[in-house]
Amino acid sequence: MKIAGFDIGGANTDLAVVEFDEEGNIFHIKTDFCYMPMWIKKDELSQTLIDLLGSDINKIDAVGVSMTAELADNYQNKREGVLDIAGRVMKSFDCPVAFVGLKGMINYEEVKDNPLDLAAANWIATAPLAAHMSSDCVFIDTGSTTTDIIPIKNGKECARGRSDLERLATGELVYTGTLRTNVATIVDKLPLKDEWVRVASELFAVTADVHMALGNINQEDYTSETPDGSGKSEEDCLLRLSRVVCGDLDLLSHEDVLEMARFIHEKQVVQVAEALKEVTDRENLESVVVTGLGMDIIGSKAAELLGLKVKPMDQILTREDCVVAPAVGTAFLMENFLRKQK
Amino acid sequence: MKIAGFDIGGANTDLAVVEFDEEGNIFHIKTDFCYMPMWIKKDELSQTLIDLLGSDINKIDAVGVSMTAELADNYQNKREGVLDIAGRVMKSFDCPVAFVGLKGMINYEEVKDNPLDLAAANWIATAPLAAHMSSDCVFIDTGSTTTDIIPIKNGKECARGRSDLERLATGELVYTGTLRTNVATIVDKLPLKDEWVRVASELFAVTADVHMALGNINQEDYTSETPDGSGKSEEDCLLRLSRVVCGDLDLLSHEDVLEMARFIHEKQVVQVAEALKEVTDRENLESVVVTGLGMDIIGSKAAELLGLKVKPMDQILTREDCVVAPAVGTAFLMENFLRKQK
Repeated sequence: MKIAGFDIGGANTDLAVVEFDEEGNIFHIKTDFCYMPMWIKKDELSQTLIDLLGSDINKIDAVGVSMTAELADNYQNKREGVLDIAGRVMKSFDCPVAFVGLKGMINYEEVKDNPLDLAAANWIATAPLAAHMSSDCVFIDTGSTTTDIIPIKNGKECARGRSDLERLATGELVYTGTLRTNVATIVDKLPLKDEWVRVASELFAVTADVHMALGNINQEDYTSETPDGSGKSEEDCLLRLSRVVCGDLDLLSHEDVLEMARFIHEKQVVQVAEALKEVTDRENLESVVVTGLGMDIIGSKAAELLGLKVKPMDQILTREDCVVAPAVGTAFLMENFLRKQK
Repeated sequence: MKIAGFDIGGANTDLAVVEFDEEGNIFHIKTDFCYMPMWIKKDELSQTLIDLLGSDINKIDAVGVSMTAELADNYQNKREGVLDIAGRVMKSFDCPVAFVGLKGMINYEEVKDNPLDLAAANWIATAPLAAHMSSDCVFIDTGSTTTDIIPIKNGKECARGRSDLERLATGELVYTGTLRTNVATIVDKLPLKDEWVRVASELFAVTADVHMALGNINQEDYTSETPDGSGKSEEDCLLRLSRVVCGDLDLLSHEDVLEMARFIHEKQVVQVAEALKEVTDRENLESVVVTGLGMDIIGSKAAELLGLKVKPMDQILTREDCVVAPAVGTAFLMENFLRKQK
């Protein structure tokens, strides 16, 4: 069986086309993604899904969908967002389609009755992959924009929060990511030479600029837009970072800016570690599975800071597949759902 | 003599047309401003200045200009920004024009030699107005985007920092304002019911939404764009604020959101108070003059938190004129400059 799993985020739409043998074991995964800002382009969603699938559209048996895009600020509320997105998905495909909800996969009719069951539930899809690696652990999925920190016990996720709002309170969601996070939301002051300098509260630079400057990611990883609309070279990233203290590359040396970037990175890791400690302490868990684009530079570092054991998910998936782990997990859940219906 | 003072900011361009008697005393002030985001519309700057002046263009004797717009991220560096803006100003007027620099007014030829003298110097223009009220004080000008905290001794400004970068280190500039500041740069967590909730690092809501929700400003004061492009009613502002914790107005009551707004306001005041304390302690100053759109809700509150004496600048200017105090001060400095040349 061949199944397409989509993870429709506010900024990125991810796809995994997964082939299963008759026992439901994965034997092939192909992944892709594109930058599709839902707050600008929601009318293009259907075409984007079809384009991402390409020629596979005639070869797949079913489609599974998880989403977080309903949070985008072009929707009045999550209910409206979920119904709009699910409706667009349904119009795009002829094969069976189901959605990842907080209680498992549900079909479109059920979505219409309880749209909030679907809101921001993509972390549900990643849980079985992490549970496969360790039946008692916390998994940390650091994407472009957010970090999920989900406890797993006896092979099942047991997050205390269900909605994003609840998870922001329980430490299970930290709204910080590898690419899109405004650095002014991470730091109030930066060390520069022998002083502390307050930061400008504009959107002058993002974490992608920090991680590019530090060599933590490549230019191909920088898939989001740049804050100033200019390039993604190391020099471009350094210039954007210099603006965070109202500087430029006349006033600040590369080493000055790198000092700032190292501090921002450190602060971001600490932010994730604080939430991780809330979760591991509460749940008495000691091992961590990391995935997502920021698995090495954020998730692992936060776990190491707390002295926790770390398993990277690239032990069972390729690194490319880890970046879209919720899409892979969504296809996995969809296969299960279909098999149970038989 | 009738003089136009312009303060060209990154987001707002302010104008004061000031009439002086023969001794150089102000006897009439007319002010205006418009929202002109320089990172999008710099090609319209010249026309904007001319439109703002209206029929006064044929009645004025001279033009004075201060600027902070060179920081906008469409410029590679401040040098390029200052030269571009000054060049556009020169093409707009036939009468004498001079610019507020860190060492006083300078003409265009001098600007071309030392463009950095002009960068972000608009606070220089406000200093004489504050000094007129108190010869030993700190003045706090809280605009739409930033807050200047400038010490005055013996009637003269004596800021330790000159550039924005330096002033961000000395406590003389806090990059927080009444309208445009992303609330996610002010708070990391918010109190909600009986819990602390982390915030989303997107640009979901700004300080204008906070101050509208709390009744601190009117809809006419909300001159900047809204983060989601929708309206400026109280309900619109509450919806944007609810998104800061990934909520909406289905999930959160108005009172929940107001609790959050009060906390953000408090935190903003504390941020300004911390910097103010650095400046007053260092300079041994005890009295404060406040001006700008946020004079009552941010500047005064910060001073009161520290037990300092507060004089609002609306004792000598109207409240409307206080909002564009650097433009009034720029006209004042220009009149002085011309009189000295005679």
